[in-house]
Amino acid sequence: MNESHKEAMVVSIDLKDKLRQFDAHWSPKRVAGFNGYDIMVVKALGDFNWHVHEETDDFFLVLSGTLTVHLRDRNVQVEAGELYIVSAGVEHRTSAADEAHLLLIEPTGTPNTGDPSTAAVVEEI
Amino acid sequence: MNESHKEAMVVSIDLKDKLRQFDAHWSPKRVAGFNGYDIMVVKALGDFNWHVHEETDDFFLVLSGTLTVHLRDRNVQVEAGELYIVSAGVEHRTSAADEAHLLLIEPTGTPNTGDPSTAAVVEEI
Repeated sequence: MNESHKEAMVVSIDLKDKLRQFDAHWSPKRVAGFNGYDIMVVKALGDFNWHVHEETDDFFLVLSGTLTVHLRDRNVQVEAGELYIVSAGVEHRTSAADEAHLLLIEPTGTPNTGDPSTAAVVEEI
Repeated sequence: MNESHKEAMVVSIDLKDKLRQFDAHWSPKRVAGFNGYDIMVVKALGDFNWHVHEETDDFFLVLSGTLTVHLRDRNVQVEAGELYIVSAGVEHRTSAADEAHLLLIEPTGTPNTGDPSTAAVVEEI
């Protein structure tokens, strides 16, 4: 542990407040760090591309709206207050017919498309 | 990655439904796994003990109610829809004047009290 880990967060992080600060879809914003992971919020609308993360599970917690997780053999509806984890190595895409707000947790540096050349740049808010 | 990681979760996990399945306070229940972490829900009421996790940050997302995170130099109120991360090495305790429901993420095997001899056994629901 380096010393910077001993600094305590001064206030809590209000996810709705963070979500009010941007409009872009499929553009995750980092709101906190946790053990080398980025805690991010994202607005989903429409279709995201098929991809796979070979080295990490993919964590989705739906804060509002409905997210569809498409797997090669089924679709899973994930409603507000529900979470879904795509295991490492499992091909998937996500879609949202209406805007949905999500909490994501990924190892820092994970490309959201599974491919660094097409991944969104993660901004901190 | 072992092969079991390629099995996809069949349905999403409804956190409110999980919380309806138990009454005990300060008794985290594992609802999913993620990269060697336990995703847990817990009901908080009253005061938890002072402790420290030297090797891991401590993740709290408040799903309902209000959690107070007590640090040695300040208290932080964490409301529903807010998250707070206690950095590794920072002494803390938590309390809730009224029942609060939380989502926790901890490396599998982390003692909730910071001490294996007093830690709650984490049951899967």
